[in-house]
Amino acid sequence: MPTIDLNSDLAEGFGIWHLTDDEALMGVVTSANIACGLHAGDPEIMATAFRIAKAKGVAVGAHPGFPDLWGFGRRRMPFTPGEIERLVAYQVGAAQALATYSGHRITYVKTHGALGNMAEQESDIAQAVARAVKAVDPTLAILAGPLGEQAPATRDAGLRAVAEIFADRGYSEQGRLIARGQPGAMIHDPDVAADRMIAMVQAGAIITASGTHLPTDIASICVHGDGPHAVETARHVRTRLEQAGITVASFAP
Amino acid sequence: MPTIDLNSDLAEGFGIWHLTDDEALMGVVTSANIACGLHAGDPEIMATAFRIAKAKGVAVGAHPGFPDLWGFGRRRMPFTPGEIERLVAYQVGAAQALATYSGHRITYVKTHGALGNMAEQESDIAQAVARAVKAVDPTLAILAGPLGEQAPATRDAGLRAVAEIFADRGYSEQGRLIARGQPGAMIHDPDVAADRMIAMVQAGAIITASGTHLPTDIASICVHGDGPHAVETARHVRTRLEQAGITVASFAP
Amino acid sequence: MPTIDLNSDLAEGFGIWHLTDDEALMGVVTSANIACGLHAGDPEIMATAFRIAKAKGVAVGAHPGFPDLWGFGRRRMPFTPGEIERLVAYQVGAAQALATYSGHRITYVKTHGALGNMAEQESDIAQAVARAVKAVDPTLAILAGPLGEQAPATRDAGLRAVAEIFADRGYSEQGRLIARGQPGAMIHDPDVAADRMIAMVQAGAIITASGTHLPTDIASICVHGDGPHAVETARHVRTRLEQAGITVASFAP
Amino acid sequence: MPTIDLNSDLAEGFGIWHLTDDEALMGVVTSANIACGLHAGDPEIMATAFRIAKAKGVAVGAHPGFPDLWGFGRRRMPFTPGEIERLVAYQVGAAQALATYSGHRITYVKTHGALGNMAEQESDIAQAVARAVKAVDPTLAILAGPLGEQAPATRDAGLRAVAEIFADRGYSEQGRLIARGQPGAMIHDPDVAADRMIAMVQAGAIITASGTHLPTDIASICVHGDGPHAVETARHVRTRLEQAGITVASFAP
Repeated sequence: MPTIDLNSDLAEGFGIWHLTDDEALMGVVTSANIACGLHAGDPEIMATAFRIAKAKGVAVGAHPGFPDLWGFGRRRMPFTPGEIERLVAYQVGAAQALATYSGHRITYVKTHGALGNMAEQESDIAQAVARAVKAVDPTLAILAGPLGEQAPATRDAGLRAVAEIFADRGYSEQGRLIARGQPGAMIHDPDVAADRMIAMVQAGAIITASGTHLPTDIASICVHGDGPHAVETARHVRTRLEQAGITVASFAP
Repeated sequence: MPTIDLNSDLAEGFGIWHLTDDEALMGVVTSANIACGLHAGDPEIMATAFRIAKAKGVAVGAHPGFPDLWGFGRRRMPFTPGEIERLVAYQVGAAQALATYSGHRITYVKTHGALGNMAEQESDIAQAVARAVKAVDPTLAILAGPLGEQAPATRDAGLRAVAEIFADRGYSEQGRLIARGQPGAMIHDPDVAADRMIAMVQAGAIITASGTHLPTDIASICVHGDGPHAVETARHVRTRLEQAGITVASFAP
Repeated sequence: MPTIDLNSDLAEGFGIWHLTDDEALMGVVTSANIACGLHAGDPEIMATAFRIAKAKGVAVGAHPGFPDLWGFGRRRMPFTPGEIERLVAYQVGAAQALATYSGHRITYVKTHGALGNMAEQESDIAQAVARAVKAVDPTLAILAGPLGEQAPATRDAGLRAVAEIFADRGYSEQGRLIARGQPGAMIHDPDVAADRMIAMVQAGAIITASGTHLPTDIASICVHGDGPHAVETARHVRTRLEQAGITVASFAP
Repeated sequence: MPTIDLNSDLAEGFGIWHLTDDEALMGVVTSANIACGLHAGDPEIMATAFRIAKAKGVAVGAHPGFPDLWGFGRRRMPFTPGEIERLVAYQVGAAQALATYSGHRITYVKTHGALGNMAEQESDIAQAVARAVKAVDPTLAILAGPLGEQAPATRDAGLRAVAEIFADRGYSEQGRLIARGQPGAMIHDPDVAADRMIAMVQAGAIITASGTHLPTDIASICVHGDGPHAVETARHVRTRLEQAGITVASFAP
């Protein structure tokens, strides 16, 4: 009987602005990726998210991104690998401290937005992220795509790589996300998304746009925390998974 | 034979801008207060400062401030005590992680600028800082004036308070800093500054503008890291202290 | 037959975050106060708001605030009057250029949040705002409370002061806003708000909590742009005003 | 008898941090490019620079860049052409207002750092800059390399293009700057720099690394405002130009 984690990017607000309904989503997901202040997330929203997660038994991870509030960390910025190490270390530390302050403890790191895309595509960036995480706390896992650059870089660094797939995204023949804007990139129907997730988890494989099965471990499913229907979609995916006999539980030990 | 620590606010740059000659000053001081990114200090300058400190055997602390790069954390901002807890926790965590990344370890916290002034003057702010530090890491000390609000708030929280005096500042009859702009606030002559420091350390007392001795423990002397003569002044104070038979060494155990 | 302007603070977003439904509100109000980038408002949202306002025939003004995105400009910051001059000039210029870019033209300035409160309460701040506006463009009006410090400071500078009252706020016996958190500060019922606005406009007076009439010119009513019911409330107030025979039109010549 | 303008990037500070000695350099250059707040330059330093420039008879221009204080606008950010229009318009307006506030008036725009490099290399970015400037104030000139993408895009938009060369940079066979890090990119000897500038101005041509002359109009020479020897180098270049019979004067009408 397969087990799968359900993760979402939360605390994606800043001051008066909010994007995600953290309270509601933490009633659905089993892992919450917490923005760390540079692309979103201020100390208030971070501490609150960690406190809610603790109360609801949701695992938490640091979700570091580029220092670009305006661009929400979605603009690629040409940081060097060394700079990315320090950028990630800074944010992981801030998240660790606020989690501790809120009585919780982060167990993993997941890179955000353009930083995440770069880390999946460029091995030197993936290695920089892994070095940063290892230097700060080698017990932390890294949550990333199973067939991108981060998974092997994470394992090579001696860290635990946790393989995630995206509920609402299509996959190329190489098992990577089809870029937004390309045909098949987005899965809009929650039922189609759920069907795909169940199929991939049961097959132990990423299923590409052409239907090819790329066998891989799959440990977590990412559902989006923003958008008007985020909570219902996440709940629907979870219910469908459970109806299919899949246990939804955090990947944290 | 008395022992005294010499501390300075370092890493007070941001990107291309630098204010302090960290390399040179770390050859003089025994404790370096590292800016944490919100009023000054980016991950690059922080990691470099921690690395230099480690190499030179200088103790390091987090130096959190208000989120105001333009005002360098010197403008009072009406954060609530609760918000100050999260603001301090965030910055302490970021500093911890970058220190760890650089092979070092912070052992104390010192509040910066307007946040420091508020914490010295308002007990609820002082208590908020102490709660934040205790929540994140209760082994961290807090460096603060011996006769302000921070020292008792720190001890009440069960944390170690390390008493510091300022080499270039005058003291009121209550043993607090004379506000900048008031007569006697600033000591400009390095020799006068050194004379005063030696006298206070030997007397075990803050000596006020009128000459009154206010007995207190004194564990550290703060010398300024910015300004064109910062390195020479710091070196001069250190040399004079040593010539007077005072051992200059970190307060860290 | 009295005429009144209806104004609202719009473009209060930043990047991915939005607070106000600018498109819908510009179908109701006759003047839009546009955030200028420091407490909210990026160049994208500003240009879009100016474009919509132009298309809908809505007058536009610059809405400058403190440089504090996290605090949304609601935290008082101790800027000197001189610094406030430059802070306001900077933001007014940015708004002018983006309005011009979008084919529109700002005709007034209204200070935001803590800056607005300080300008209403402290004459040196009110004078600084007026000096800044006068220096940049003396044809711009300043929108402010009729019985605070800004109105006389604006007139003394030779600028046009446009008197506004708030639909959802109670007034003290001095004709100033009752501070949030005090009894009577907020008017929650849109019908009560509309009744009060009609009464004040028809009386040509601010009506205080005790019912006292303080005669004054009233040229504009501020309705809130944020909150889940902002559009309906604004529309309701407008409809009620029109039903009472009051013409709703911009104060701009 | 040829005439040449001497320009420098000034006001490149932020709050407590300063990079350029604006007072001294305004005694040497004839045009000052003023940072506009997003990569450097706060309202205080901008207003002061405009005031000094006015007093010394130095022409001023807006020097807009990417919103990246940490990276000093030197990191390429993937803004779309449309976003760049609004980004430039915002900054030009802020500079216009502060210049007006200080009794001066900007007469041109020069893009900074990575934005400048992108505008020189990519015609759609160059056109976006030109559209922004034209929309805000079509009397403003654009200062740019004579053989890059900005000069033709500027002229095509009906704006005045002012051709500048760099005193301390080598030129490729295409008449563009040799990228930093490549051999011949930097000219370190002030006398060599001066020799080259005199030769180019007298020849009416960019002289490439191989000695080829690429005939072009040359209206301005850029000297660096930062670095420990900026003032002396700028003064030396100016003196050498004047000794060669070249008049140093602003290009503004």
